Order: sequence, then C-alpha cells, then structure tokens
Amino acid sequence: MQPLVGLIMGSASDWETLQHAAETLERLGVPHEVRVVSAHRTPDLLFEYAAEAEERGLEVLIAGAGGAAHLPGMAAAKTALPVLGVPVQSKALNGVDSLLSIVQMPAGVPTGTLAIGRSGAVNAALLAASILGNKHPEIRRALHDYRREQTEDVLARPDPREEG
Amino acid sequence: MQPLVGLIMGSASDWETLQHAAETLERLGVPHEVRVVSAHRTPDLLFEYAAEAEERGLEVLIAGAGGAAHLPGMAAAKTALPVLGVPVQSKALNGVDSLLSIVQMPAGVPTGTLAIGRSGAVNAALLAASILGNKHPEIRRALHDYRREQTEDVLARPDPREEG
Amino acid sequence: MQPLVGLIMGSASDWETLQHAAETLERLGVPHEVRVVSAHRTPDLLFEYAAEAEERGLEVLIAGAGGAAHLPGMAAAKTALPVLGVPVQSKALNGVDSLLSIVQMPAGVPTGTLAIGRSGAVNAALLAASILGNKHPEIRRALHDYRREQTEDVLARPDPREEG
Amino acid sequence: MQPLVGLIMGSASDWETLQHAAETLERLGVPHEVRVVSAHRTPDLLFEYAAEAEERGLEVLIAGAGGAAHLPGMAAAKTALPVLGVPVQSKALNGVDSLLSIVQMPAGVPTGTLAIGRSGAVNAALLAASILGNKHPEIRRALHDYRREQTEDVLARPDPREEG
Amino acid sequence: MQPLVGLIMGSASDWETLQHAAETLERLGVPHEVRVVSAHRTPDLLFEYAAEAEERGLEVLIAGAGGAAHLPGMAAAKTALPVLGVPVQSKALNGVDSLLSIVQMPAGVPTGTLAIGRSGAVNAALLAASILGNKHPEIRRALHDYRREQTEDVLARPDPREEG
Amino acid sequence: MQPLVGLIMGSASDWETLQHAAETLERLGVPHEVRVVSAHRTPDLLFEYAAEAEERGLEVLIAGAGGAAHLPGMAAAKTALPVLGVPVQSKALNGVDSLLSIVQMPAGVPTGTLAIGRSGAVNAALLAASILGNKHPEIRRALHDYRREQTEDVLARPDPREEG
Amino acid sequence: MQPLVGLIMGSASDWETLQHAAETLERLGVPHEVRVVSAHRTPDLLFEYAAEAEERGLEVLIAGAGGAAHLPGMAAAKTALPVLGVPVQSKALNGVDSLLSIVQMPAGVPTGTLAIGRSGAVNAALLAASILGNKHPEIRRALHDYRREQTEDVLARPDPREEG
Amino acid sequence: MQPLVGLIMGSASDWETLQHAAETLERLGVPHEVRVVSAHRTPDLLFEYAAEAEERGLEVLIAGAGGAAHLPGMAAAKTALPVLGVPVQSKALNGVDSLLSIVQMPAGVPTGTLAIGRSGAVNAALLAASILGNKHPEIRRALHDYRREQTEDVLARPDPREEG
Repeated sequence: MQPLVGLIMGSASDWETLQHAAETLERLGVPHEVRVVSAHRTPDLLFEYAAEAEERGLEVLIAGAGGAAHLPGMAAAKTALPVLGVPVQSKALNGVDSLLSIVQMPAGVPTGTLAIGRSGAVNAALLAASILGNKHPEIRRALHDYRREQTEDVLARPDPREEG
Repeated sequence: MQPLVGLIMGSASDWETLQHAAETLERLGVPHEVRVVSAHRTPDLLFEYAAEAEERGLEVLIAGAGGAAHLPGMAAAKTALPVLGVPVQSKALNGVDSLLSIVQMPAGVPTGTLAIGRSGAVNAALLAASILGNKHPEIRRALHDYRREQTEDVLARPDPREEG
Repeated sequence: MQPLVGLIMGSASDWETLQHAAETLERLGVPHEVRVVSAHRTPDLLFEYAAEAEERGLEVLIAGAGGAAHLPGMAAAKTALPVLGVPVQSKALNGVDSLLSIVQMPAGVPTGTLAIGRSGAVNAALLAASILGNKHPEIRRALHDYRREQTEDVLARPDPREEG
Repeated sequence: MQPLVGLIMGSASDWETLQHAAETLERLGVPHEVRVVSAHRTPDLLFEYAAEAEERGLEVLIAGAGGAAHLPGMAAAKTALPVLGVPVQSKALNGVDSLLSIVQMPAGVPTGTLAIGRSGAVNAALLAASILGNKHPEIRRALHDYRREQTEDVLARPDPREEG
Repeated sequence: MQPLVGLIMGSASDWETLQHAAETLERLGVPHEVRVVSAHRTPDLLFEYAAEAEERGLEVLIAGAGGAAHLPGMAAAKTALPVLGVPVQSKALNGVDSLLSIVQMPAGVPTGTLAIGRSGAVNAALLAASILGNKHPEIRRALHDYRREQTEDVLARPDPREEG
Repeated sequence: MQPLVGLIMGSASDWETLQHAAETLERLGVPHEVRVVSAHRTPDLLFEYAAEAEERGLEVLIAGAGGAAHLPGMAAAKTALPVLGVPVQSKALNGVDSLLSIVQMPAGVPTGTLAIGRSGAVNAALLAASILGNKHPEIRRALHDYRREQTEDVLARPDPREEG
Repeated sequence: MQPLVGLIMGSASDWETLQHAAETLERLGVPHEVRVVSAHRTPDLLFEYAAEAEERGLEVLIAGAGGAAHLPGMAAAKTALPVLGVPVQSKALNGVDSLLSIVQMPAGVPTGTLAIGRSGAVNAALLAASILGNKHPEIRRALHDYRREQTEDVLARPDPREEG
Repeated sequence: MQPLVGLIMGSASDWETLQHAAETLERLGVPHEVRVVSAHRTPDLLFEYAAEAEERGLEVLIAGAGGAAHLPGMAAAKTALPVLGVPVQSKALNGVDSLLSIVQMPAGVPTGTLAIGRSGAVNAALLAASILGNKHPEIRRALHDYRREQTEDVLARPDPREEG
C-alpha cells in the first residue's frame, strides 16, 4: 500500500523513541515507511529523500532526532509537505537541545514540533493522522475511535488507588 | 468563502503576534477566520468552538497563547482536527513558559508547536498551508510559489554589506 | 462524611506522587475524595467536576499533573473555589514544564502552586488544611498539632551524625 | 474594618508589583492591610508579624519578594494561616530566582505560589478571595461577579482586529 | 576546644552532603560544631542560634540546605559573622533551586555561596579556613599545606591512562 | 587575493553580529569572502558552497546563525574543512537556542562553537587566525601582535575609576 | 593606609557594577585598592597579583567578571586568602554564565560567590567586612552600625504606598 | 613522532570522557600527547604547558574540564594556537556549567567549543584533524576516509527495525 507517512530518524538508536510513532500509525491503519536518514552523516540522502517525498506520494513526514537536531528542519527546507519533528531525549541536556533545535525555526520554513521523547513520538503519529484525516475519511474515523477509546479508558478507572 | 483555518488566541493582546499568521494566510490565499477565545476566561466558548470546528468545515486550528498557555492543548482535547500552537512571548520568561505549556503535551492529544513569537506565527500559517495542500492543490501551488520567492530573495542579495 | 477536598490527577500514574497529599489529609483528619480526571483525555468530565465542586460541598481542589499540565488551571477556570496545583516530576524536564504550566497563569484565574513532586503533594494537603482552618477550627487545631510535632522532631535529633 | 488579608512585601520597590494585589482586593471589597516587612533586613519584625497574624484576625497572608525571596516561606514558618507567595520579577534572572525560592518549599511548610510579576499579584488577591469565600459568602459572591464580568469582557470583543 | 565554625543544615538528610565539610575542617584542624537547624520547621531555633553565634565565639557559619533554601540567608539576617552557603542537590531541579535561593540575596545581607553538592561542602570548609587564617596563623599554615599537597597529587600522576 | 576564510550567515540581519568577525579578519590581514547563505531558504546553495569550499581554496568556514541555527552544522556535514559556528543572539531566547543548535552536534561532524553574539564573532575570526597560523606564518605573527596589543591596552589603564 | 581588600575586575566596563563594592567598602571604612586585571588578556598579571596578595598585606580579594568568568577562580588558584566572586550581568545570558563560571568550582579551590550584578557587588563588600571583622573590631562595629541602620530604614517607612 | 595535538584535562576522572578524543585521534593517525593539567590545582603547570606548546611543535590543544571549567580558556590565554574545549558532563548541572564556562569567552581570547561529553570528545579530535588537514595532507585524507566510512555505515543499514 502506498505509504502516506515517511518516518525518518537521525540514527538507529532513535528507534527506541520513534517506534512509538510507528506503533501508533499501525494501530490507526496509516500506511507508512521507516528509514534512518542522518542530516549530518548522510546529507545528500536527506535532501534526495525530502525533495522526492511529495512526488513519491507521501503526505506527511515525521522526523525524530536528538542534540543539535537538524533533521526535521532540513527536511522541511526541501519539501512543501508538512514536517513533524520529534525531539529525542538527549543524554546531557534531556532533550532541551533537541527541542530548541527543532522548534525554533526562523520564519519561512516550519516544523510542527511535538513533546520530547516517547509522548512526542506517539503524538506525532496522532497529529499525522489528524492531518491525513482531512483527505482520508477512514483515517479521520480511526482517529475518532482512538480518541474515544482513550477517553473511555480514563472513565473506566476513576480511582487511582485501585491501580497497581 | 468557507474558512479552512480557525485562528484563535487567548487575548486581544496576542494579536500583535498572531496577525503575522493572518497576513501569511492571506498572502497564500487561505480562507480563515479570527477569534479571541480564552481558555481560562471563556472555557465554555473554547469547548464549543473546538467541538464544532470539524462540522463547521474548518480543517486546521491555529491557537496562540502566552504564559501557562492552555489554549492549544485544550482545543486539541476537543477536536480531531490538527491543532497548531504558537507560543506568545511572555513578559517575565520570554515565552519559555508558553513553549513548554504548549509542546509538552502528554501522549494522546497532540499539538504541533511552532517557534516563540512572530516567526512561529508566520510558520503556523505556512504549516497550515502545507497541511491543506494535500487536499487543496491550489494551496499547495501557492505554497510552492511562496517558497520559491523567498529562495530567490536570498539569492538576489548575496552580500550582506550592501543591506541597510 | 462530606468531603471538603477534591483531590484530582491527570493520570493514574500520578498517584505515586499525589498519594502523599492523600496521606497527609488523612493524618490531619480532613475528609476528601480522590479521582482521576484528565484535562486532555476527559475534558468534559473535568469541566463537569470543577463546575459542580462548589455545590457538592467541596471547599478546596488539589490538582496534580505533569508535562503540559493543564488540569489545575482548567479546573480553576470552571470554579471559584481555591485550586492548588501540584507539578508532577516529568521524565525529560524533571517537572520544570509541569511547574511553569501550572504557576504561570494569566491574571484572572489563579492556581496556588506547590513544589514539584512529593514535597509539593504533602504541602498541598497542608495548605488545604490552612485554608479550611479558617472555617473549621478542628482542622486548624490538627494543623497546629502537626506543625508542633514536626518542630519537636527536629529539636529531638540535633546531631545529624547520629542518624543512619 | 477588621483586615482579613495581610499584604506584605520585602521592599518598598516591590509595591510597583504588589499594588495590583491591593487594587484587586479593593475591587472585591476584601479588607486588608499593607506593610513592608523584609525577611533579611527586619527578620524580627517578620517573625512577630507572622506569629501574631492569626490572633490579630487575619485569615490569609500575601507575601511578595524578589531574588532569593525568603519572605513568603519564612512567614509560613511562623503561622498556620495560608500564605500566598508572589515572585517579583528580578533584574538579572527575570524572577526565575524569585519563583524557585518561593515555590520549592520542602515538605512541612507550604506557600501557595502565583505567577511572576503583575499577573501573580492580581491572582494572589483572587486566590485570597477564593479562600475567604468559603467562610465569607459576600466575598464568594464578589468573586463570582468578578469572574462573570471578565468572561463577558472577552465575549463582548471577539475580534482582535478591532482592538487598538 | 572552642569551636570556630558552626556547621548547620536544614535536615539530617543533608548530612550526606555536609559531612564533606566536616571532614575537611577536621583534616585542617579547625574546631567546629555540627547541628541540624531548620529554617522552616525550627525558625526560632535558627534565630537564636544565629543571633548568639558571635558571642558564643564562633567566627564563621556554614549553612547547607536544599530546594527553597532559606537557611543560609536567614542565618545571615541574624548575625554579622560571615555565612557560607552550600546548595544541596535537590531531587527535581538538581540544586538549581538551592543555588538561586542562596546566592541571589538582595543587597544588604550577604551569603558567600559555594558549588552545588559535595564540591561545595568541601570548599565551604576550605573557604572557612581561608577566612580564619587571617587571624589564626596555624589555620593559614594548615591550608597552605593542604593546597600544596593537592598540587603535588596532580603533578605526581600526569598520565590519566594509568588511573583505574 | 585568494580568500582563506568563507564567512557565511543565515540572513542579512545577522551581519550586525558577523561584521565583527569581518572587521577582525581585516585587522589581522586574513583574506576572506562574505556571503548570505540560508540553510532553510537556500539549502542547495549551502550544500554547493560547502562542498566546493575546499577545492576553491578556502581553509576555514565561519558560519553565523540564530534560533534553530542549522547553518554551521549543515556546512560541516558537507566539508572536511574546520567550521566555526557563531550563535547569533535570538529575540526570545537570547541565543540559548542558537548556541545549543550549533554546539550540541552528534559525534561525527563537529563545529567549533564560539560565544553568543558580538564576542563570538570577534573570537571566530581570532580562532580562524589561530588555525591558519599553523600554515601561514604571517597570520601567526599578526595574531601574536594583536594579542600583545590587547594585553598592553589592559596594562596601560589599570585604574577603572579613570575610565569614562 | 594598608589596603585590606583587593578589588579586581576583568574589564574597565565591569566598574559600573563593581563601584558599588567600592562605595560600600568606603562607607564601612575598609581600606582597599582597585585594579583592572584580566584573566584572559593579562594572565601573568593576574597570577602575580594573586600570588603576592597575602605578603602585600591584603586579607580578602573581591573579583568581579562576566561571561566565562575565570578571574575569581584563577585568583583563588594562586592564593590562600578568601576570594569573593561577583558575577557581572552579561549581555546575552544575563549573568547566568558568569554565575556558573564562578560558583561551580571543583573541590579544592573555593570562591565565595555573591549575587549577579549590583546586589552582589554591595554584598561582596559586606561579606568582606564580616570576614575582616573577626580580626579588626572597628570593622565589625562599622558593620553592626550599617546593619542596624538598614533595619531602621525599613522600620521607619512601613507603608509602601507613601513611597514615590 | 612529534605530537601535533596536546590533549589535556583537569582531572584524571575526565579521562572517561576524553579517552574518546584520544581514540579518534589514533584512528585518524594524528600524533598526540595526553596529560592531566588542572587550572585550579596546578595553575603554574598549566601556564607553562600552554606557553611552551607552540615552540614544542604542538599545533592544536584540546582541553576538557567540568563545572567551572577554566582549563580551555586559561590555556587559550597563554597560547596563540587553536584551543578546542570539551565540556565534561558535571554531576549536578549535567555540563551546562561546563559548557557556559568554556564557550562564553569574552572577545579577545577564543576557545572552539564542542558538545558536552563523549560526542564533544570525539568531535574535538575530528575538528583537530580538520585544522591539521590544511597543512598535513595525509590527515586531510584520513579525515575524508573517516567521513566516507561513517556515511556508508548509515547507508548500509537504512532500516532501524533490524538493529538490536
């Protein structure tokens, strides 16, 4: 099936975080592809990947990276598709560097930035589904179902003292 | 014309920042509406606005707020549309509080966060256009034009010593 | 017994922190109720809970949440009761995001914010008791006793070298 | 009229911030007193003031201070009344030092902390009114009126482009 | 022997950090006393201790505390002796709160602040010895010896690859 | 004369900062060229510029940028020449974002980072001269002269009270 | 008169801050000398100055510097006298860099650090007087007078509303 | 073989970080020497080492230190060789103090700063090789090989799901 989301990350070690994006996309039935693309170690691959994304039929890019995280912003520099950035939690600075390197883009080239780490990865998939839902009604429906289920999960267990 | 983007802000004083989103949407020809909706002072209005946005035909929400900025996240809690958050630069903390209050959403309800202040407002409009471009080819074209023009602007003036 | 304090939290996982509030309320003999209410996953429940708190006889709300912590501020938006916020220590940012999202409320809707984590949870209960003590003399007395005991505890063990 | 709120600050220069608390208390009809009390320059006065506050009939203390702001916490160490802390925006660190010095109290002695600067001062008055409202119905009513009016103010001007 | 340094801390749990001050004072032969004194839980004891320190013959106070660390500053408010502050590493904020609460004293009442944690505790003892050395030549000599030994220690092992 | 240093910046507005690098290079007699190259708005130009720098005879690149500053790191990704990064002071975050986006490069592709703003621009030129001095003795001599003069400047005016 | 305090700073521009230390020393009648000594531009002078301070009869050094402020710590590396550090407020980072560069000394060589900027400069003089007071009774008396006067100043103007 | 790089660190415990610089230099065939030199505990050794580095034939210095890290800046104050600074991750502040103490040098004496910790150590070696490559073609070639290999490593494993 034609992938709609391209999920890229700067290093294989980022998979520990970004797998949560992939899992959420799968749960929502959103076709996607996964690839390691490093802004610093494979800059030409990054440019080629981002420049061709639109004509290859991708509709959203999710890019995760840590530290001086240039992957989301440089992907956004080479495509007019929406690019979502996931700041990976870095060792020394806990992802503050990743967050600022992704979110503080100058006017002209945007990245839609999510939270640091696992929550951000899950939410990148959910935001991608929100975006795709405008054009793909079945993804909008899947997202509504996902959201309703998580609401019901909270309502079903109102007393935290019963949790283990 | 049916607005596709709902641009909301927590206070009329945020207009100084968010007008840059409106101007950019206009330049791109994206129909939109503008409204002050305060998460804290008009919570019921916020819930009503967000809950009805999808059926009213909006496809993207842009929400700007400062300080303990709850507007984007609470809008996202009430809609399955993509919500983009613009952290307004706050007085004491320069928008660090706004940024963290918007971007650090827990898994389950995402906001796509842009940079603090004016750059973020411009970029929210550009990201909204990216999102809409998947379904609306004329917006995709307008965005490609916008991007090409800004590239040409840089290329046309390579020497900073000639600027005033 | 009519609960005077409503202790709510954004996720069952916050109970690890907020249980220290519950234990302290119990030690002081303050009747209270405990409930998971998520600003983002159950926004309607939150609004209903906060809007009805006053007429249900609650006199103080304690709300704990982490990350982009919107629970205390949104509860405060829907009630005129005093709302105390406990920032839960978040994974990446150690609760700085939680703290700023709770304390930096714009003028008009206040939250009384306590320290990040366990100390804040204990202190939310003590501050709730201070508040209730104005109207309920037995709670004021219980608080005076608690405070006197903790002073005596320090005075009884002046030499840290004897501790284990 | 018997003051119910004692509004203290570490320096006369803090009045620029704290006057917003006084103005809000006046608008709500909450009787109060105002005094400069410095934790560092008049420690004995602070201890006397805080220790006698309860028997003098005060029901809430609001304490504002900047930098290494010890006033709220040390007042709280000498009274069982609720103490609300307002971090004054400091010169070098913009009030981050004030905020952390006030909010990060160890378990045992709480301060309910508000936002840095003017917003925090207004909100300290509103939170004091929330607290007093449990025992003084006319203050609860005044607070409900205040809140309704600020909601109506936002609803009356939905379009930020018409503001000046 | 008449103690010259009073080493106080806000909680017995701070001993883990402050013991390094005590050990260093012992190595230098500086007579001292150790005591738990809490600014928040035993404010009267703190005032009494600090107010009497000069007449009891103490010449330097070392005060260690964590979080909203008021102990050094409040001790300094009650004595004209030099007060050295050691920020204890706090759980959530790693001692940033402790550091700012101690170092950012307003003009008029100083604390001489050392580094966060163990290094700061060792250095508080060394700085106390520097101070005492002006009047007590044998302490100056002990300090010179200590410093020379630590220089020789580095010079004796120039190659880090030989360390284990 | 063959330029040895390529001085690039992300926007013409960065010239206000980077001109101090150019002035210092001129004072040291280091031949250089100046160019606006935007990582986000002209990514292809950046790649071309960096990829050809070595064969064009440049020996050091100085790259200045602000916010999510990707220019130095992406230049470094496309050349084996030493790349020095100057964080331009950004509006909201005072250059903390610029600094972290430049300095926190992952292992494999380095940037040598200087201080935020004007000092960093001057020092980038001085560090470039240090680097070039290994191969170009006249630049080494010019740098020795520059350093000796600034030492003499301080020694000539030892009393700050005589300055205006 | 034999100076007891050596007041040094890294640049003549630091005098704007450090003059407050000099003024306070004068008010207290503490003999002192003032000198520009740069750790980076005149390292040999710094070493000579610090190494000879003790035999020249100085009893305390006050060192002020901004940014990567190495002056206090390097002075402390070359003397066994107490060294007090004043972080000068820096342009981009408001003195956070100055503060951390001064206070976070590794175990073995201490600096007693004061607040950022003017308050820290005043307090460095007061702390120097505290230190000298142990040996010089007239300085202890002058300090007691200074402290009593500032207490009386606060007590004389209890109402901030009467200030201008 | 004549060492070209002098690799120094403030403490033997920094070797855990700096060994990654040594390993990378070895892999690139860059002759180097390794030495513990403490700015604070052996200031005279540091001055001698840095002052003689140029005439001893060294062409680049790499200096790693943590906390109030004065080693790189003070080495740079005593030599006109390029000095690269590696901020070692500190215990309480995770290397933020180390980073700011190294990078925020005032105009006049530069350090080229790398990332905090292991990445910065690796990159210091790579940047040293970039610098040396201008004069030593075999080092330039070794660096080109290193870079090509790391690019090929990423390209060879595009799918992170296959990594373990």
